[in-house]
Amino acid sequence: MNRQKRTVFYLSDRTGITAETLGHSLLTQFDSIEWEFINVPFLDNIDKARTVLKQINHATECDGHRPLVFSTLLNPEILEIIKQADCRIFDFFETFIRSIEEELHQPFARMAGRSHGLQHHLAYFKRIAAINYVLAHDDGINPKNFAEADIVLIGVSRSGKTPTCLYLGLQYGIAAANYPLTQDDMPTIQLPQVLESVKSKLFGLTLTPAQLHFIRQERHPNSQYACLTQCQHEIRWQESLFRLFNIPYLDTTHISIEEISAIILDRCGLKRQLYG
Amino acid sequence: MNRQKRTVFYLSDRTGITAETLGHSLLTQFDSIEWEFINVPFLDNIDKARTVLKQINHATECDGHRPLVFSTLLNPEILEIIKQADCRIFDFFETFIRSIEEELHQPFARMAGRSHGLQHHLAYFKRIAAINYVLAHDDGINPKNFAEADIVLIGVSRSGKTPTCLYLGLQYGIAAANYPLTQDDMPTIQLPQVLESVKSKLFGLTLTPAQLHFIRQERHPNSQYACLTQCQHEIRWQESLFRLFNIPYLDTTHISIEEISAIILDRCGLKRQLYG
Repeated sequence: MNRQKRTVFYLSDRTGITAETLGHSLLTQFDSIEWEFINVPFLDNIDKARTVLKQINHATECDGHRPLVFSTLLNPEILEIIKQADCRIFDFFETFIRSIEEELHQPFARMAGRSHGLQHHLAYFKRIAAINYVLAHDDGINPKNFAEADIVLIGVSRSGKTPTCLYLGLQYGIAAANYPLTQDDMPTIQLPQVLESVKSKLFGLTLTPAQLHFIRQERHPNSQYACLTQCQHEIRWQESLFRLFNIPYLDTTHISIEEISAIILDRCGLKRQLYG
Repeated sequence: MNRQKRTVFYLSDRTGITAETLGHSLLTQFDSIEWEFINVPFLDNIDKARTVLKQINHATECDGHRPLVFSTLLNPEILEIIKQADCRIFDFFETFIRSIEEELHQPFARMAGRSHGLQHHLAYFKRIAAINYVLAHDDGINPKNFAEADIVLIGVSRSGKTPTCLYLGLQYGIAAANYPLTQDDMPTIQLPQVLESVKSKLFGLTLTPAQLHFIRQERHPNSQYACLTQCQHEIRWQESLFRLFNIPYLDTTHISIEEISAIILDRCGLKRQLYG
């Protein structure tokens, strides 16, 4: 059976991040469709709008179905042009903004770019400071400063520590350090000594031996490091360690970096330092 | 005049990223309100729902206004409990999912966590590869590999190169390198030699001298490096360089890392490697 082909447009005055995030979370609820995504950020003048109108109508012809258009456009003139296209528009602003106005007894500002726009100096510095902290405390560097960390992720090589720390820093302003558990630690089930003083900040990342094997194979094919038996051994060892020392830990096999980060925040009761 | 105080709840079965993105983009359109944000991710059982119900009603009493509740909850039983609270609910799924079902002639899956959930191996590897590339090519490291970069950001110290590269890697899977323009380059207006072969990939980051001064002061207070005259000199020099060599560049003074990244993607016609 041929899958239904549908084109999806994300239209925005600014970055398009909101339109995409919202559209994506709705569309992942539908399986058997072949999607084509077209992102149109910075759609801020009439000429661009006319071009997009043609693009939408062209997609309708090609697909044999009208496109889905997710919009966070604020400019009513631009929206008017888009509405002339043969498509189904999901207008995130219009749908909610009137009820919010009514609830707050206040008209909205109709200012594009507010959501990702003018940054506050304080938030900027917190974010940069967090990123700098993450970069300076990746992979066990400078453990003497772990006392200043909000959290210290631990796990064997390729367990996802670095990307998670970067995401925690960038997205939430969290000072996240990480420390690798290595072969040297494995003869006994003991915490590496440098971690003892920050035990309450430790959080373990684990995954299935099969997934670890798969990831390591990509990096060093057919090495001892990547072999399944080695991965099984390391994972068994680190999970015993986490349990013995009551270190909270998470199996990341089936979840994304965003989700891992949100779960860590939730479980550790960490307060995010940045909003929006 | 006292500002209206309003509590906002973000309720989700999973990370809460979608609910927050929606709420935040709408609420930034209203100025004179004092917001309190309460994020409730992983709201996945009846007991937690009852606790949140109480929290919402408590906020209504304290604020003298009912809270705004942005929900991406999929579980109807949990939603039913929340609906008993004295609040205004903006139910993201319920609002859009029926029209999308109708448009696609297909029922939705009602599977929580799809939007940020099960990752595809390919996307995972692209993402990790991009992050590794960024980390290995930060601040002018390994310029001999710049040929493999999707983009090379250039700018003086503290112009925002590193966080932008990290965001491009994490969010879009872009292999972003960066190279600092330093005092050593400034006696003449010439491109540093290592950049000549990748001229078509260069993108400049600039900002106002006052903002650069402000940022550098935070790092090295009252240094020669941070003084306003020095910042003026460096910014004037780098903007001349960008113009002389036709290097596209962006003034980042008033925009966020998300916005800088989206603009770079748009201007350079770079294709994002990751969705969702």
